[in-house]
Parts: sequence; C-alpha cells; structure tokens
Amino acid sequence: MPKYVYFFGEGKADGNAQMKALLGGKGANLAEMTNLGIPVPAGFTISTEVCRYYYEHDGAYPPELRQEVEAALSRMEKVMGARFGDSENPLLVSVRSGAAISMPGMMDTILNLGLNDETVQGLARRTADARFAYDCYRRFVAMYGDVVLGLKPREKDELDPFEVIMDAKKRARGVQYDHELSAQDLQELVQEYKEEIKKRLGVDFPQDPKEQLWGAIGAVFRSWNNPRAIAYRQLNGIPDDLGTAVNVQAMVFGNMGKTSGTGVAFTRDPATGEDVFYGEYLMNAQGEDVVAGIRTPQPINKRQKGDKDVLSLEEELPEVYQQLEEIRKKLDRHYRDMQDIEFTIQQGKLWMLQTRVGKRTGLAALRMAVDMVREGLITKEEAILRVEPDQLNQVLRPIFDPQQKRQAIAEGRLIAHGLNAGPGAATGRVVFNAPDAEQWAARGEEVLLVRIETSPEDIRGMNAAQGILTARGGMTSHAALVARQMGKVCVVGCGALEIDYKKRQMEVNGHTIKEGDYLSIDGATGEVIMGRIPTRPSEILQVLIERSMRPEESQIYGYYAELMSWADEARRLEVYTNADKPDQANIALAFGAEGIGLCRTEHMFFEGDRIDAVREMILAEDRAGREEALVKLLPMQKEDFKGIFRVMDGKPVTIRTLDPPLHEFLPNTPHEIEELARKIGVSEQQLRAKVEALHEANPMLGHRGCRLGIVYPEITAMQARAIFEAACEVAREGIKVYPEVMIPLVGDVKELRNQRRVVEEVAHEVFSRYGMEVEYKVGTMIEIPRGALTADQVAREAEFFSFGTNDLTQTTFGISRDDAGKFLRPYLEAGIWEFDPFEKLDRAGVGQLMEISVKKGRMSRPELKIGICGEHGGEPSSIEFCHQVGLDYVSCSPYRVAIARLAAAHAALKERRKD
Amino acid sequence: MPKYVYFFGEGKADGNAQMKALLGGKGANLAEMTNLGIPVPAGFTISTEVCRYYYEHDGAYPPELRQEVEAALSRMEKVMGARFGDSENPLLVSVRSGAAISMPGMMDTILNLGLNDETVQGLARRTADARFAYDCYRRFVAMYGDVVLGLKPREKDELDPFEVIMDAKKRARGVQYDHELSAQDLQELVQEYKEEIKKRLGVDFPQDPKEQLWGAIGAVFRSWNNPRAIAYRQLNGIPDDLGTAVNVQAMVFGNMGKTSGTGVAFTRDPATGEDVFYGEYLMNAQGEDVVAGIRTPQPINKRQKGDKDVLSLEEELPEVYQQLEEIRKKLDRHYRDMQDIEFTIQQGKLWMLQTRVGKRTGLAALRMAVDMVREGLITKEEAILRVEPDQLNQVLRPIFDPQQKRQAIAEGRLIAHGLNAGPGAATGRVVFNAPDAEQWAARGEEVLLVRIETSPEDIRGMNAAQGILTARGGMTSHAALVARQMGKVCVVGCGALEIDYKKRQMEVNGHTIKEGDYLSIDGATGEVIMGRIPTRPSEILQVLIERSMRPEESQIYGYYAELMSWADEARRLEVYTNADKPDQANIALAFGAEGIGLCRTEHMFFEGDRIDAVREMILAEDRAGREEALVKLLPMQKEDFKGIFRVMDGKPVTIRTLDPPLHEFLPNTPHEIEELARKIGVSEQQLRAKVEALHEANPMLGHRGCRLGIVYPEITAMQARAIFEAACEVAREGIKVYPEVMIPLVGDVKELRNQRRVVEEVAHEVFSRYGMEVEYKVGTMIEIPRGALTADQVAREAEFFSFGTNDLTQTTFGISRDDAGKFLRPYLEAGIWEFDPFEKLDRAGVGQLMEISVKKGRMSRPELKIGICGEHGGEPSSIEFCHQVGLDYVSCSPYRVAIARLAAAHAALKERRKD
Repeated sequence: MPKYVYFFGEGKADGNAQMKALLGGKGANLAEMTNLGIPVPAGFTISTEVCRYYYEHDGAYPPELRQEVEAALSRMEKVMGARFGDSENPLLVSVRSGAAISMPGMMDTILNLGLNDETVQGLARRTADARFAYDCYRRFVAMYGDVVLGLKPREKDELDPFEVIMDAKKRARGVQYDHELSAQDLQELVQEYKEEIKKRLGVDFPQDPKEQLWGAIGAVFRSWNNPRAIAYRQLNGIPDDLGTAVNVQAMVFGNMGKTSGTGVAFTRDPATGEDVFYGEYLMNAQGEDVVAGIRTPQPINKRQKGDKDVLSLEEELPEVYQQLEEIRKKLDRHYRDMQDIEFTIQQGKLWMLQTRVGKRTGLAALRMAVDMVREGLITKEEAILRVEPDQLNQVLRPIFDPQQKRQAIAEGRLIAHGLNAGPGAATGRVVFNAPDAEQWAARGEEVLLVRIETSPEDIRGMNAAQGILTARGGMTSHAALVARQMGKVCVVGCGALEIDYKKRQMEVNGHTIKEGDYLSIDGATGEVIMGRIPTRPSEILQVLIERSMRPEESQIYGYYAELMSWADEARRLEVYTNADKPDQANIALAFGAEGIGLCRTEHMFFEGDRIDAVREMILAEDRAGREEALVKLLPMQKEDFKGIFRVMDGKPVTIRTLDPPLHEFLPNTPHEIEELARKIGVSEQQLRAKVEALHEANPMLGHRGCRLGIVYPEITAMQARAIFEAACEVAREGIKVYPEVMIPLVGDVKELRNQRRVVEEVAHEVFSRYGMEVEYKVGTMIEIPRGALTADQVAREAEFFSFGTNDLTQTTFGISRDDAGKFLRPYLEAGIWEFDPFEKLDRAGVGQLMEISVKKGRMSRPELKIGICGEHGGEPSSIEFCHQVGLDYVSCSPYRVAIARLAAAHAALKERRKD
Repeated sequence: MPKYVYFFGEGKADGNAQMKALLGGKGANLAEMTNLGIPVPAGFTISTEVCRYYYEHDGAYPPELRQEVEAALSRMEKVMGARFGDSENPLLVSVRSGAAISMPGMMDTILNLGLNDETVQGLARRTADARFAYDCYRRFVAMYGDVVLGLKPREKDELDPFEVIMDAKKRARGVQYDHELSAQDLQELVQEYKEEIKKRLGVDFPQDPKEQLWGAIGAVFRSWNNPRAIAYRQLNGIPDDLGTAVNVQAMVFGNMGKTSGTGVAFTRDPATGEDVFYGEYLMNAQGEDVVAGIRTPQPINKRQKGDKDVLSLEEELPEVYQQLEEIRKKLDRHYRDMQDIEFTIQQGKLWMLQTRVGKRTGLAALRMAVDMVREGLITKEEAILRVEPDQLNQVLRPIFDPQQKRQAIAEGRLIAHGLNAGPGAATGRVVFNAPDAEQWAARGEEVLLVRIETSPEDIRGMNAAQGILTARGGMTSHAALVARQMGKVCVVGCGALEIDYKKRQMEVNGHTIKEGDYLSIDGATGEVIMGRIPTRPSEILQVLIERSMRPEESQIYGYYAELMSWADEARRLEVYTNADKPDQANIALAFGAEGIGLCRTEHMFFEGDRIDAVREMILAEDRAGREEALVKLLPMQKEDFKGIFRVMDGKPVTIRTLDPPLHEFLPNTPHEIEELARKIGVSEQQLRAKVEALHEANPMLGHRGCRLGIVYPEITAMQARAIFEAACEVAREGIKVYPEVMIPLVGDVKELRNQRRVVEEVAHEVFSRYGMEVEYKVGTMIEIPRGALTADQVAREAEFFSFGTNDLTQTTFGISRDDAGKFLRPYLEAGIWEFDPFEKLDRAGVGQLMEISVKKGRMSRPELKIGICGEHGGEPSSIEFCHQVGLDYVSCSPYRVAIARLAAAHAALKERRKD
C-alpha cells in the first residue's frame, strides 16, 4: 500500500532529512528535527508523489489520500491538544509548499487555516486577545481569497482588492497603520472581505475548516505550475516533474504577548564563519515582522549585542536562549554545516519552524569549511566542496567599508548599475581619458577611469586608475578583460552613463558627474555610487602580493592556505595563468600558477616608444623596411621574455605570436595621424592612405593571427628570435626555461606547418649560434571552428592545443562580443540564452567543438598537451567542463588562479562522486 | 617474369590505350595508334613501374631492364631501317616523359639522341644537308648538357651557358637569327658546347649513344621529382607514387626539305564543335616552330583557308592530306572524342606523333557531346559528362568579338587583371558612381561602373551599367554577388586601380582613365582593356530571355536544350534560384529553376521611397513608432511577394526574413545625414547619435539575422503578414502558392522557436481573416557553426534547412570575406589554400559541418527538406558535394541555374559510376 502522508510530532517522524525527493526540503528537515527531539509544532507532509499524481490525473488525488490526511490530522490534534474546527480550542494550521530543490517565493502558502466565524471567537477567548484573533482571521480570509479562490486584481494596474478595503477602513478610522485598527475594525474587515469575495467571485468564503484545508492543498499543488515557478525552474534547470510536497503544520504564534517572540538565526556567524550563535529576534511579533524591517530586531545574545543599548534574548528569556543555544549546537553538529533556522516562542515555549543550510560570505564559507575539518565534522573533500570557487573572490579583493557603503546607499547615492566585470571595490576621482588618469595618479590622486569603452592605448591609464567604468561592452569587452588581467576593479556596460568627453562630464540618471568628482564602484555587484567610500584591502593579498603582512599574522590567510593545499591534492587539472609581464607572472605565482598559458606579445608593443618601431614596421613599403624596424623591436621583446623566463623558473611559458590586426597599432584621429606623420617623416596623406588601406569591415575576422605571420614571416621570425635568444641567455644564468610557442588563429594545418617551419628555422639558427639547445614546443590555439573540426590534421604539426574560447565562442555563435550588448539582455530575458556565453562556456556548441578537438587531436597525437586560455579558463563551471573533456590545464588571469585551483578540485571531486 | 618495356611499331604494339597507368598517357596512345594501323615512328615505352622501382632502389633499375631495352632497340632498328650509332644510317631517338595524368611541361625531354661526332656525318650525308645535321647535333648537345648533365645557370640571374656561347657566335658572325648561321658555325658551336661542359662539369659529353640513352632515361625518371613537378602534383592532387613512363621513339624530321612539314590539328573544330578537320601546319619545319609563332602556320584544308591568300595542306600535299583526313576520322570515331593530334611529314611520308583528348570551347563541348550521341558514338550519360558545367557559361554570356579583342591586346591596351567575378564581356564609358551610371544610361550611354567597392545603395547604378569593375573585394564581395544575381559582367578586386573619386579618374599601371573614357572588361578572364571592343550576345539568351529569336532558329539553343533535357533526367538534386524580384525569377525559370531558394526581403527595402519608411522604422524611439513605420512598408512588401508568387506559380518560394544589420539602411556621409534629418524632421545630432549607436565593430557578427526579429518581433510580424496576405490574395487568383519562411542566422533552437511562434501567430490571424489557408513551411538557414552543431535540436522546430554557406564559411574559417583579400593571394601562393573557400565549398571544414547538420537534422526529423542557398549552390564541385551529402536542392543565382542543373547531373552520374 502506498504511503502519501508523513507525520511528524512529539519526538517522532515518519520521514527524515534523506527523504528530500519525497518530502521536499522543508518537510524532510521538519521530520529530521522532530526525530532529533527538537520541539517542532506537529504536522504532516503530503509527498511529492501526490503532486505528480495530481497532474497526471487532472487534479484528482489518490483515493487513499483523504483517509491518510484525516488520520494525520487526528494525531496532530492529539499532540497539540487542540481540535481542528473546535469552537473552544481550535487547532490552526499553516499549509506550505516545499520542493526537493528550493524555489524561494515561487509557490503559495496559507497561514492561520482553520479559522471561521466560530473558531475565531474560541481563539479570542483562549488568548484573551480579540484584536489578535480577528487580525489572524482577516489575514487568513485575504490570503485564502487570493491564493485559493483566486480573487486577484483584474487588470495590471488595479490594486489588490483586499488592500483597497483595508485602505478605506483606515481612512474611515483616520489612522495610518494597520496596527492602529481595533478588534472591532478588524472584525468588520473580515465581513467586508467575505462580501467582496461573494460579490466578485459568486462563492462564499468556506466556513468548514476541512473544506478550507483541501482548498489550500489543491492551491499549493497548482502553484507548482504557475508561470513564475515554471520560469524559475527553466532558468535553474529544475525538472518539471519533481513536484512539490505540501506541509500542513500546527500554527504557533510569536505575537501572543510579552513572553512570545520570533526570530531567525544561524548556527555560526554567516559573515565571518566563527563558531558562535548569530541571530535576531523580535518579541511579540510574527515571522513576517522580522523580515519586513518595520521594527529593528534585537541581537540574540550578549556577545552579539556588544555595547549596543538593547536587550538580547540571552538576557530577556535566558532559559529559552539556553534551549536555543543547545538546539543550534545540535543542528550544527548533526547537519555538519551551518544552518539557517527559524524559531517562534509562544508564551514562553520555544518552537522550531525551519532549518536549512544557510547562505554565507566567502570568508565564512572558507573558515567554516576548514574549522569543520579541524573539528572532525567533515572530510577535506567535503570542505573543498563547501566553498564555491567564486566565493574566494570575496576574500581576495578589496572591499568597501560595509558601514559606509550602507550609509551611502541610504543617502540615495547609488545612481546606476553596470556589469560586475572586475570584482573588488574602488573609489576615486573621475577622469575621462587615459592620459589624465596617468597624470592625476602621478600626482598622488586616486582616480577612476570612466570611458565609453576602452582600447589598447588606454592600458597605462587603466593601470594608473583605482578602477575602470565603461558605458559599453560586456563581460569580455576589452575593459573587462584587461581589468581582470590587471586585477583591477571594473564595471562595464553601464548604459546609464551619458558621457560627454568634450565637456568632461557625464549624466547618470539625472545626476551630473564632472571630472574630478569622487565616484565609487563595486566590481562585485556592478553598483555605481556617488562620492567617496573608503576601501580596505584583503588580508590574503597583503600576505601574498603586497607582503605587508606575514602569513602567520593572518588567520584568514591560514584558512585560505589550508583549503588550497587540500584542493591541490584533489585536482587533476593544472592551473596556468595568462600574463604578459613579469609582475603579472609574479602575482599569478603567488596565487599558485604552474605555468603561463598565454603570454600576449602584442601588449608589449604598446610600451614606451616601442610603438614607434611597431608603426615603422607596419608602414614600411617592403620586407626590407619591415625587417629594419623589427630589428629595433627585437632587443625589447627579448628583454620582456627574459624577465618572464626568470620569474617562471622551471615552469612552462606559452608565448603567442602576434595576433591583433595591424591597424590596432595605428592612430585613428586626424590629430594623432598628423603627429605620427611628422614623427616618422611621411606625408599625412600617405599615412592616412595606409590607415585607410588597413581598415577592415570585420577586424575580428580579418588579417590577424597567423594570417599576419604567413604574409609577413619576418614578424614571426623576429618574435621567435627574441624567444630563443632570451631562452638561451636566461638558461645560461642557471634558470630552467620551457618556452612553448603558440601560433594563433589556425584553421588549417598548413598554416601551422608554415609558421612552425619559420619558428624551427630560427630556433635552429639561434641554438647553433649560442652553442646550446633549449627544450621547446610549438603548438597552436584552437579558436576557430575549422581548426577544431580538423584537429586530427592540426595535431600532426602541434605539440599542444590551447583553446581560445573567446574567439571560438565568437565564431561558433557568429557573434562579435563587442556588439553582443545590443541583444544580450533581450536574449537572456527571453530565455534564449540561460547565460552569457562569453562569461560561461557554452557546452552544447563551443563545448562540442572542444570535445571534437580533444578526441581528434589525441587520435593523431596521443601525448598532445591540451589547455584553455580563453577567459572561460577562470570560470568554475567552464573549468568543470574542461576537466570532464580531459584537458591538461586551464589558464586564467592571475587573480583567478586560486579560484581555478579550487574549481579544478571541485570538478575532480564531483567526478569521483559520480563514479 | 615482369615486363618493363612495351614496344610499338609496324602496326603492332605491346600496349594499348587502356594501359595509361602503366605506360602513361602518351605511351598508351602511341601504342593504340600503332595498333590502329596508323603510321607511328617505332619505339618503346619503359613502364611507370620502373620509375617506382628506381625511387625505391636509390636510382637502380630492375636487373631485367637493360636486356629488354636492348631487345626493343633492336626491333626499332629493324622497323625503321636504321641503326643506333651507325655512322652511315644512324637511328636517332627522342626520350620523353609521360605520366598517367598529364603534367604538361613539368618533366624533361631529350631530342635527337644518338648523334655524335660520327653519326652526325652520316646524317649529313643521308640528308645531304650538313647544316641540318649540325643544327640537330648542337641542339642535342645543349639539351643533353642541361637536362642530363645538369649544366645550368649557377645563379638566378645568370644566362643559360649555351645561350651565352650562341650569342657570342652570332655577334662574331654579325647575324641576328640562329638560322643565319652556317653548317660550319654550327659545327664550331658543338665543339664549344662540349668544351664548356668539360670546363664547367669536368666530364666529357658522351659519344656512346647507349650511354646517352641511359643517361636520358635516368634524367627523365629524376625529373618526376623535380620541385616544379612535386608542386604541380600537390596543387592538382596527383599522388606522388604514380611515377612517369619513359618513351623512346625514333626521330622523324619535318625540316628535311620541301616535302617535309609538321602540324597540329583537331579532329573536330575545337571552337565550334563542328565535325570538320581543323588544324595548322608549316612546311619544312619542326614542331617547335609551329608553337613558337615565328612563322605563320598555314590552314590544313581549303574549307578552313576560305579566301585567304595562302596554300593549304590539302592543296600542297593532297595525298598526305587525304591520309591525314582518314586518320582524323579513325581517331575521332575510335576514341569517341575530339582528338588533339601532332603529325610530321618527313620527305612526303606522314608520321603521327601524338593523340590526346583536345581542349575545346564551351560551345564546341556542347555541340560535340550532342552530335556524338546523335552519331551513336557515345551515350547520353557520357555526353552529359563531356560538358563541364562551367563551360555552359561560355554559351550563355555575351562575348567580345574575338578578332577585335586580339587586336586590342596586340595594341597593348590590356592594362590590368582582376578577379573574374561575373562572366561575359562588357564595354562602356567609365563612371565612378551609381547615380552617374543611372543618368548616363538613361540618356542612352553604355556605361561601365567603376568603384573601389560597391554597397547596397549602388544597386540601381549597377543595374544600369553594362558591367562593374571594382578595386577591392573577392569573388563573393557585394559587387560579385549582386552582379551574378543580375547576370552582370563583373571584374572585382582589381588592385591596380587607383581611383580618385574627387578627380573622377583613376590611374591603372601608369595609364590615366578619366570619367567618360571607354573601357572593356572580360568577366570570364578578369581582363581590363582600354577602349571599346564590340560585344555580341549569346544565342541562348536571345532565345530564352530576350525572346528575340525563336528556338528553332538557333542551332546552339537546340544543342543546349537537348543536353539539358538529358541532364534533368540524370540528376537527383533539384535546382532552385536566389531571386528577389519577379524579373529575376522569370529569368531563373527560363533557365529551368524549380523554386526560389532565397528571396532576400531586404533588397526590396532599397527600392524607390521605401527606404524612407525603413529609416523611419529604424529611427523610431519605441515599438509603437516602429509599428507605425512598418504599416507603411506592409503593402509594398505584400506587392513584392504577390509579384513573385504569381511568377513562381506552383513552385516553392523561400522567403528570408530581414537579415542585415539595421545600420546598413542608414546614411553615412555628413551630407546624407543632414538631408535625411531634414526629411524626417529630427535634429542632425539626434540622427548622428542614432547612426553612431548602431555602429558595430564587426557587423558581420553583429545585431542581424534572427537577432533583429527577436529584439524587434514587430519586424518579423510585418514580413510574415506581407507574405501570408500576398499568398492568400494570389491563391484566390487561382495560382498555386507555396511560401516557405526562412529564419536567418539561427544558432540555437530557441531563437527559431521564438521567431516561428511570431510567424505562426500571424499566419493564423491572416488565414482566419481571409477565411482560407495556404500551405506553408517555416525553416531556417544553417549558417553559423552552432546551428550546425546543434542541428538535431534546431530540426525540432525547422521544416527545412538551407545552408547559408557564405556566412558559414566566414564563421567556420573565422574570416570576413570583405577582408580576406589581404591574404587570399599569399594563401593561395603558399599552397595553404588550394582554392578560395568563398568560391568553392571547403569540404573538410564547412562541408564537415554540413554533414553533421544533415545527419543530426534528419535524426530528429527524417523528412527534413535540406538545401543550400549560399553562392556555392551554383559552383559545380560544391554541387557535387551537396549531392553526396544528401541535400534535396541547391539554389543559385538565375544565370547559374542551367550550370547547376548540369553539375547536379554530373554528381549523380559520377556517383552511379562509383557504385
């Protein structure tokens, strides 16, 4: 015989915490708490099976259900010492949804069920509080009328019908707040609510509590398929056939006088992770009052109270507090994780209403995970999985002083939102161009660089700024990419900015921000706030990067280092970094990088007066002219590589040959062209013609990548010479050097063969000149679909593959990331995309090409080394995919290396769990 | 026992024409002719097996070879009545390469072998012509010195050493031409040549004819692997291990006096295909003299001579001519194909030296194929395969008067070459912008539109011009695409043009062409020729399109119609057309189109004052504003569709919803912006801001295709309304309408689902309003890799797929076709690409995605209709691939429909042959 109803009460429950699929999360945890001997108001859970039955049978229930519910109700009555529908001592119940996977606020709830014209009087008598009783009743009628009977506003702009009646009543009584209404007023309201229901729906509000109950149960099941819930499931990938359970539970009231109260608490501090009780409560109040924020809740204990001039629960009801403290310990140890609990004190008696795993800050997650291992509660593997990789960001990046930020928002200084492209907090004076940023910073100002969008020429200005804010661009726009590379705070795509470069000011939702005004941005949330908000640096950064703190001085660092050492044991993927300079490489090493997966040689081209030589090369009329200019670049590139090789001693350094189209190195504005023409001694007209000739309709798909090296092999040769000469010279210093030369944008094996030959010839020549050899690899980026599709051929010439998933995403989707902003939001809103594919790897398309490449590549060359160096290499879900398809390493920006290490450990552990 | 040497001579040969793999083409045909009783100088062929043996054994021969060669040589001596190395009656031989697949000019040849200081005197005596004998000898020594002994210029710029000696001799004798030297001079030259060989190589020129022979055989085998030959094979996909045969054949001389001569001829007229003998000859000359063009050859017969004041072979040597005429018939009937033959008459005796299948014009190919079926020589299937689909172009397009073109080139008026983008010949006065083209044409001028590149706004000007010439762009640039669509003559990417729009002139390799100057372009060759060259239209066009000729009046049309009817029986693929307007559709129908595979709605947007409504829609601030503008466009689009539906009665019409990014419809220049701002009553600044806001970094990957319809569903809805209202109204006229709505640029099934819903809602609404239903389909273009990779999902919402291989090529390669010009040529030259992938479908990458799509698509929906509407749909090798992977149809521009029909037949027949 099937069982549909699971009772809990008086220390015994039919269910337990393992039965979430059947009882939903809420029901399973109520059962578990009951079994633990924790005081839980009695009740029962109707299983998710009934929900599925309900939908499969056009809203009918299994025949056995009614009897089971009746039986469970009787047990509730016995346990609670009250009777459903009794006019003297009525049992009131709540009816709540509860799915296996939490869908907060998506489904319906009915409270105070069981009240009618008679039982309300019983409640009034027993509580000696008519106002309380009628307030419960009028809330119930309104809730029932809305949720079960469906009395909702007819038009979008119409007010809630019950609100309208309430407002009229308050006006009639000349009062402002609900609680100013008398018992009599509330009783009248009940009557008026019922009349409205009759008038508008043609049905009577049911007086029979059983009828009420079945009405509510049906409403909760139906709410599983309301449009909001369907959309939520679609968005979160929750299967539609899981169904919800229904929890019917005895009501308890925290608003029954001075020894009643209600509160929420965490079994550890959710902000710091410390193993202390942390919570808030309100005396003589209902749960919704705590949430609503009309009254200020009190701290739960003296520790938390500090020197504030309020009472804590510990002081007000010491026995209850003691009981609660024991429950918190029990739950914390039992669940072996921090719990978020809800409790109600009804006339001095404590009732627990909910327990679930609580949300926490990154710091708390880190600390609790490590602490719980130390406490013997969880294994190292569990600890690793307890910290979401992205949460590490929070302990690595500078943050605003929370107090001051809250105040700024309260003062209405939050003026816009952009995309949270580079986490951390930054505050500074606004400048609108890169040279200003450099100059202001040079004279000691904190500046915030605000641009419509950024370009490679802005790099030094970006570096000088505290943070970068742009009006255009997505999560992988130039600004976002460079900022993450530099570890800069960055907010991009903030459409509300109307920047006027000429006037050196901008309009933002009606506020005018002028050059020099202070502005603050939160790169973790995308918030843009007027004025200055002080920031504080992360301890871990102080230890690892700034070295302004010794490791043993920082507790946070200790937790971080311990968890990361466990993660390193667990993971299989290696973690490299994308770094163009020794200082970036140093930061990445501090975060645990095991190699450089992408060193972009072109970023070096903008440094100092190198750009002159670069431009000379581009503007040369023939190969001889280009070679003459390249000779000037050679020693500079060589020095760059030497610096990086020294820092990366013993670790592989993957260097990509020139990638961007040449026009990126040329000036654009008439003024710049005039200046350059004078400098290099050609006519403006000639220069303009050259700039014009290099113009491309679609530069992303233009003359770039290996296409440059094939047409101008002398460029590849110069770069190879710089690499190998640097390698030889540094190797002579006793440093181990492993250069890996990476040819970009390969779509055909013949491209790679061509460039590989150039590289090998130079290597041979340099080695014989230096009389020594350095071990090196030649490989390619897989970043266009044709390269992926023909990976078996490409692998014949490649010793390694590195997925350039930025470009691979662009070409696979046929979407320019610079232009995607125009339809990204509509696409996300219409549910066409579940996420921005430039942020998180698209497994169905881009991922499919990666799988094809890995399979075909290793078919031709089983020992092929395969990694990823696109932005996705630092994104946890993408890293999981990289692990799954068998990559050897991921490479990400220096500040994401630790996150990637943790994500790689997650991927490995999740895979192990599946096995 | 293996056999390595195949003798031929005196009516009997060891080999035959089927043995090409073993004997090479030349050897097999010499054997075949011998067997046919045709007089062929005796000789033998050393098989390709020996070549393979030679390379596998480091240049050694099979042990049996020497004996076999000796035996064959003896038979030759007997047959020819002369002896190798005999001082009285020496046998001289030629030693030539000959591979299974012709590699013209790639390998080496030695003539007059067998001459030495003694035999030369014998030859002189027997021919009574010492000058002749020593001329043969000095040629042989030079050839042998070069080819066998390897005496070549030491440096790139050095002259041929034998040339240097020859030049010195001529200077010493004070003569200008070789033939002015005396026998004595030539004898001295032989001596000097030999001394040079000794001096520079340290070896003696071998006097032993046997040693000469083996030296020559080895040299020919070695020439199989000279760099030129290797490159040629790589380029033409010829396997490296086929090897060459060596043909040793008795020399015969056409320069032995007045009854000697030499000639080349075709067994039918290679220009017209007529079954008449066509050829040229020179009396008292060697083969190379005919080719060299120093003397003007004579016509072979009276028919060909016409009223020219020369003698023909028919008159000069009537008996020989009669014999030759019989041979031509025999060869033509025997080989069942037109042969290209070489003959020599030595002192009145005719010798045949070569026969092979001859090259022919498109017209000749067509006529001969049909004639040979009528003559019972070949089957219809063979006839179809005899005409290369692209050859049809030649019979469809206007051509220059050949006489006048030749003269123009002789006058040095050929000034540049571009890409042959739109075949045919055009001549006209140069204009540099589209409005001028229209105006000049309106007043009756023939104009040639010359632009740096063209844009959609130039369309009317292009239509008005005789032809289009651009400086930039590849085979699928806008100009090329539109020209082919319109059937316009077009040459693109002519880099030599330096156009100055302001001065209204251009510089072309030192020539200045001004507006109004006459210029001629040959779209079949890419030639750009100064001045006017008269053109003549194709007869088939006069019959099919212009209707200025009745079918029965044109013999060429008759041939065309017959061949095409056979092709239609043979093919499986249907052939649709890409047509945006009724007149284009009409042309396509005349060429046999069976539906429209791509009707681009946006081309309609530029017509007349529609562009105003389009711009109003783009510039609208909100949906209401856009809808207001769309209401104006609706009736116009509807009329367009009605026109097309009427023309296409009973055939499917695939209409693509709006595809290009909206900024393509907005003006660019300040002047145009000013004008438009005034017209629509907004400020210039506002308009400029909007233009700026719509600007895209990579428009190809931007906000276009279905991305437009998703963000602005009202555009899709308007277009669907126009389609279905048109369909209903035309259906009421009794016309059968099959609209197929095609959603472009789909990368995710959800995009298609979204747009499909919009289309279906409109269809439902229109049908219920009209009280009728029209059968229709909704499908998608597969033109970005993600769409292809997820085709199984996409097919759930698509009733048809149409491959947009232009965009699919761009995204699969990550190459913008607008920008590919910068590296296309270097890529082709470096052998990285074997062809331009925008012209010919890339099977390895793009084709792989097509195969994936077909497989996955039909997995989800077995009845899925699949076609192609990219430019490749009209390219024969791409059509073959479409057939192979199982497409249902190809769609191409109207003027390529016949070509596609023929190519489809080829594909089907080739497949059948394989089975």
